Amino acid sequence: MVKASVLEAFGQPLTNREYPEPGELAPGEALVRVEIAGICGTDAHLWLGQLPIPLPVILGHESVGRLERVGPGLKLDWRGNPLREGDRVTWASSINCGECFYCRLKRQPTRCLSRKAYGISYNASEAPHLRGGYAEKILLRPGSSIFRLPGDLPGEAVVGAGCALTTAIHGLERAPVTWGDVVVIQGSGPVGLAALAVSRESGAAKVVVVGGPNHRLELARVFGADATINISEFPDPAQRREAVLAQTGPHGADVVVECVGHPDAVNEGLGFCRDGAQFLVLGQYANAGEISFNPHTVTRKQLRMVGSWGFEPRHVDAALTLLASTGWKEKFAGEITHRYPLSEANAALQTVREWSGGKTVLLP
Amino acid sequence: MVKASVLEAFGQPLTNREYPEPGELAPGEALVRVEIAGICGTDAHLWLGQLPIPLPVILGHESVGRLERVGPGLKLDWRGNPLREGDRVTWASSINCGECFYCRLKRQPTRCLSRKAYGISYNASEAPHLRGGYAEKILLRPGSSIFRLPGDLPGEAVVGAGCALTTAIHGLERAPVTWGDVVVIQGSGPVGLAALAVSRESGAAKVVVVGGPNHRLELARVFGADATINISEFPDPAQRREAVLAQTGPHGADVVVECVGHPDAVNEGLGFCRDGAQFLVLGQYANAGEISFNPHTVTRKQLRMVGSWGFEPRHVDAALTLLASTGWKEKFAGEITHRYPLSEANAALQTVREWSGGKTVLLP
Amino acid sequence: MVKASVLEAFGQPLTNREYPEPGELAPGEALVRVEIAGICGTDAHLWLGQLPIPLPVILGHESVGRLERVGPGLKLDWRGNPLREGDRVTWASSINCGECFYCRLKRQPTRCLSRKAYGISYNASEAPHLRGGYAEKILLRPGSSIFRLPGDLPGEAVVGAGCALTTAIHGLERAPVTWGDVVVIQGSGPVGLAALAVSRESGAAKVVVVGGPNHRLELARVFGADATINISEFPDPAQRREAVLAQTGPHGADVVVECVGHPDAVNEGLGFCRDGAQFLVLGQYANAGEISFNPHTVTRKQLRMVGSWGFEPRHVDAALTLLASTGWKEKFAGEITHRYPLSEANAALQTVREWSGGKTVLLP
Amino acid sequence: MVKASVLEAFGQPLTNREYPEPGELAPGEALVRVEIAGICGTDAHLWLGQLPIPLPVILGHESVGRLERVGPGLKLDWRGNPLREGDRVTWASSINCGECFYCRLKRQPTRCLSRKAYGISYNASEAPHLRGGYAEKILLRPGSSIFRLPGDLPGEAVVGAGCALTTAIHGLERAPVTWGDVVVIQGSGPVGLAALAVSRESGAAKVVVVGGPNHRLELARVFGADATINISEFPDPAQRREAVLAQTGPHGADVVVECVGHPDAVNEGLGFCRDGAQFLVLGQYANAGEISFNPHTVTRKQLRMVGSWGFEPRHVDAALTLLASTGWKEKFAGEITHRYPLSEANAALQTVREWSGGKTVLLP
Repeated sequence: MVKASVLEAFGQPLTNREYPEPGELAPGEALVRVEIAGICGTDAHLWLGQLPIPLPVILGHESVGRLERVGPGLKLDWRGNPLREGDRVTWASSINCGECFYCRLKRQPTRCLSRKAYGISYNASEAPHLRGGYAEKILLRPGSSIFRLPGDLPGEAVVGAGCALTTAIHGLERAPVTWGDVVVIQGSGPVGLAALAVSRESGAAKVVVVGGPNHRLELARVFGADATINISEFPDPAQRREAVLAQTGPHGADVVVECVGHPDAVNEGLGFCRDGAQFLVLGQYANAGEISFNPHTVTRKQLRMVGSWGFEPRHVDAALTLLASTGWKEKFAGEITHRYPLSEANAALQTVREWSGGKTVLLP
Repeated sequence: MVKASVLEAFGQPLTNREYPEPGELAPGEALVRVEIAGICGTDAHLWLGQLPIPLPVILGHESVGRLERVGPGLKLDWRGNPLREGDRVTWASSINCGECFYCRLKRQPTRCLSRKAYGISYNASEAPHLRGGYAEKILLRPGSSIFRLPGDLPGEAVVGAGCALTTAIHGLERAPVTWGDVVVIQGSGPVGLAALAVSRESGAAKVVVVGGPNHRLELARVFGADATINISEFPDPAQRREAVLAQTGPHGADVVVECVGHPDAVNEGLGFCRDGAQFLVLGQYANAGEISFNPHTVTRKQLRMVGSWGFEPRHVDAALTLLASTGWKEKFAGEITHRYPLSEANAALQTVREWSGGKTVLLP
Repeated sequence: MVKASVLEAFGQPLTNREYPEPGELAPGEALVRVEIAGICGTDAHLWLGQLPIPLPVILGHESVGRLERVGPGLKLDWRGNPLREGDRVTWASSINCGECFYCRLKRQPTRCLSRKAYGISYNASEAPHLRGGYAEKILLRPGSSIFRLPGDLPGEAVVGAGCALTTAIHGLERAPVTWGDVVVIQGSGPVGLAALAVSRESGAAKVVVVGGPNHRLELARVFGADATINISEFPDPAQRREAVLAQTGPHGADVVVECVGHPDAVNEGLGFCRDGAQFLVLGQYANAGEISFNPHTVTRKQLRMVGSWGFEPRHVDAALTLLASTGWKEKFAGEITHRYPLSEANAALQTVREWSGGKTVLLP
Repeated sequence: MVKASVLEAFGQPLTNREYPEPGELAPGEALVRVEIAGICGTDAHLWLGQLPIPLPVILGHESVGRLERVGPGLKLDWRGNPLREGDRVTWASSINCGECFYCRLKRQPTRCLSRKAYGISYNASEAPHLRGGYAEKILLRPGSSIFRLPGDLPGEAVVGAGCALTTAIHGLERAPVTWGDVVVIQGSGPVGLAALAVSRESGAAKVVVVGGPNHRLELARVFGADATINISEFPDPAQRREAVLAQTGPHGADVVVECVGHPDAVNEGLGFCRDGAQFLVLGQYANAGEISFNPHTVTRKQLRMVGSWGFEPRHVDAALTLLASTGWKEKFAGEITHRYPLSEANAALQTVREWSGGKTVLLP
């Protein structure tokens, strides 16, 4: 039997369950022993029921593990490297169909009409059950995008970066930072720091991070922020805007990246944009409700307000390349502050709900 | 003395005034006898006080006239054609400084920090007074972008297209229709029809116009709409969306262009967008208030929501080139349904306020 | 047995051969009875040995036919329409792997490392032999992109457009014509006319076609060329350039599309470009040798010289959408001037070699 | 009298001349006492007569000096900072008209039809003579783009970067390096090192420099090259290509930047491009003759071959921002290896002709 932690009812504690060990693998399948599973902020939103998912679900969509068994025909990873049992791997959380309106015609595979994500979209009561990272093992479907990890890339770096980094890479592909840009990042959670890393790599002349609490802003400075603005020191939005513009120059930033998730951040972010800026709305992953919004601002400031959903396998490739370079792997691994065994997944999830620490992981 | 019609108090009738004939012209100036002055929907918003302008103002920012006198050194029009007294001309409504943060560094001249527009930004109580189109004459400043009209291009075509066409050209430069796109245009006023014309020219495979009343939708079909949806036949937004998607296909349009001006249109337009679409917010020129808005939609549908403000002189050039081609000049001239003498400018403005007709012009 | 016409030695007459009827179809395969097979200019280059291909080959990569049998699991066409035996279909000539460096990482599937094209890359001496259009039947591999034809779209329109149209659509996606551009097209063969059609649809303000002979230039005018320049009337390149610039304006065109194939056309095309222009080199499909070339021109005129190879299935979709619209299907069908039975494939190919007519097709 | 060094005949030694001190300055003019004047590789090409210029000419288009006198009305620098006599300044070498086909309609101001460059386009025999940097003083025309230097930015950093940096910034704006790209730079002269700096800032994952001699490649490593390939160690082009591909991966680089100037480099650079790559032809400033070139490569590899000419004032602004950041100012200043007094301008120019050293400057 394989142990897993299961979300059975929104807002209720996760339950420890056991599922049968998978039998003989079908062609292209892979059974992975999970070594680290990240707890993403989205998991906290899922736990609250802010996105439509089928219960019960084994959460966990950013994980690293070892190939325990591979099905017939699965010989190469996504990059074309040979795959062998025992290899350390990670994988893209979603599989898209490659055939629908969005995959084929519009080249928006993250909006694939039949996209399913490990740890999110699979009903754990249906065989083969093991489709999430909060478990001892996960069974990957044929067609999954698996990446063998280089020997010197620690699992904590990969999960510390997590889906935040791939999401930021995709978002900043859609709303790119150009060399010399002034950037404001709203939020210093995992997505905010990842957007900071990508902005830095893209040649931003200056990056200002607006967030908190202090230990996250310290981390932001480690990640290369030129200035950080602590929202608890500037609780008044007008003063906060003044503090931001003191850094960007009076007209505002060339690119603003919202990585907060609270819808009010969108109105605040508009105020950080110079006229003609790009405003990447990256944090509104869950449906967290409506705001009062004046669309005249979009016209008058001639903004580009850009949304981005999830990521493609090639963004995982890019993330692993970034992590392989000196410096970043240590910084992203350094985001992890809490580690729990699988049996305490519920407590682990609560640390994320309370945003009290850095990144939390399970070590099944 | 030169007669003009003046907005002296928001929401109050325009006043007929006389101003002294300008004396000797300074280098680069031009005195134009106005032949036709369009009454733009923006004028109705200005009349209501929805944009900050200095009263009193001679309204009128889309006009055609004859060069009566030219100041020393003014020898060529914007295109390099020789200018002579008696020539029929039009001109860009704004002058930008060419030196500020937006003009120089960010190449967003429509957001020039010291931009001033004829018929909008000039206090008529200050000499030389004549800075708007609702007048017998207008005095153009040095540096104005003047365009000599080809002999076979009627003034009614130019003013029928008006600033709606140049605004649509700029907006669709920022959010381009690509050959083969399915386009939905919200609104069948002058900006909507102009956006329809530019979409058609850009190779849209299908253009659906949502608007009214019927005589405007008939005009939309003359302009090349493949389908029109009358909002009074579909007063319920859910039914209207169904009717639009029946035309675009179930996923929605590649490009949606909001040309309505009422802020609610923005939420409705989001519902016409396919995932990954471009949504050009072109109509929110005046500050018409806030809406309840869910930014999760922008992230989840990974939209590009694009604003655009005004236009540059090169967009006037493009508009005149479009109008010079067979077919369009007749269609745009055909938008004009009401003609008034200057002395009845107030009555003319009211026709626009009530959106009762097509395009209204003054014949000073 | 199934009859086919086979290229067995470069520069030698095609041979009529018979191959065994395919047995039971594998999953995803389709057996198509060919109704029309186009003879592409590339076939003439292949016949001369100007691209590396494995002999013997059944040529023919642009065809229309009827589904005779479908293998298990093949239920939908590329667009998601149901497929049934007896349906009229066309198909993308190539299959790409979806997994290599170019398919996955660089999103350049037309440069797939293991791409194979019907009528070009398959050795006819290897079973199942039937991989080209110059045959009574063709056996399509699993994963082929099959398109069911609408009832009112004649096969002659599809083959008249042929791979020229999909190639032009891809090329002009890489080097787009923007609304209002002045375009020069070098060549009035099938690719030239297709580029003309796409330029027209993309909103070119003016399209000038430089080519010949007269009957092709007449066709160019039917396709919407504003001006045509007959190279036999202007045999001197300097005079030809003067004639072109008389049409484009003295600085040259915004976009120049080379659709000639002779390498000298590239130098001539540079001379038609305004500074900062896009120059789409679309016709250099075969290796036809070197030219004397001055790269200083590229720097000084700050050009964008863009290459494009083949097309993706989504370009076939776009082509069929274009052909479905009124007007274009008739125009493209009108390119066909010569029709031959399969047994006379060799004679048919010679008409193309001599560029004596319009488009030639086989009716197997 | 003001001393200057003058090119009076192509290929002949420069002559030391004296010109009258300018009288009262016209509005907008500025008289600058030159402190450092860079000797650009282009100067060597000009000396050879490889670009059409009017003799005699005072060469020198990259200089730093102090404002000695300013004409009426000249109060602000290009960035809006106040200008005072005694300020240290640099300036864009060209003035464009803002009114021609390229300035207005096509937004290609570097191809302005009446563009003139200090040190290149002005006949020194015509008053006011002082239009080049190889002189004690230079008289800047009204409309020149003047930049006041920050106090901590040494003139040697500005001239060490010179027009190479602004040229590279413009070029890489036209053919951008995207975060994660593999880049090959051909040439380790000033333009090559500048392109390396901009690639690095743009987030290149790997930059390979092909050039020489060794002291320049050492400098390239200081500038951040991941790998350098010495052309004298790999004199055989096939081996050189192998050495480059060993660094880029077997398919080649995402972006190749030609900064050599010798036309043969263009063919070699094509061989470093992966299919679908961008190839920036940045070094072919002078007309150095023709090469044998196969355009089939452009089509088959579906390349983007991009030219770029000169730079705009906003690229000077960007360069100064880059130089103001820690690290780069020291690196660029470090390029200067030879310093000469004005009276030895001819000897100075010969060091550049022989490419024997790093960067050479005059200290008038």
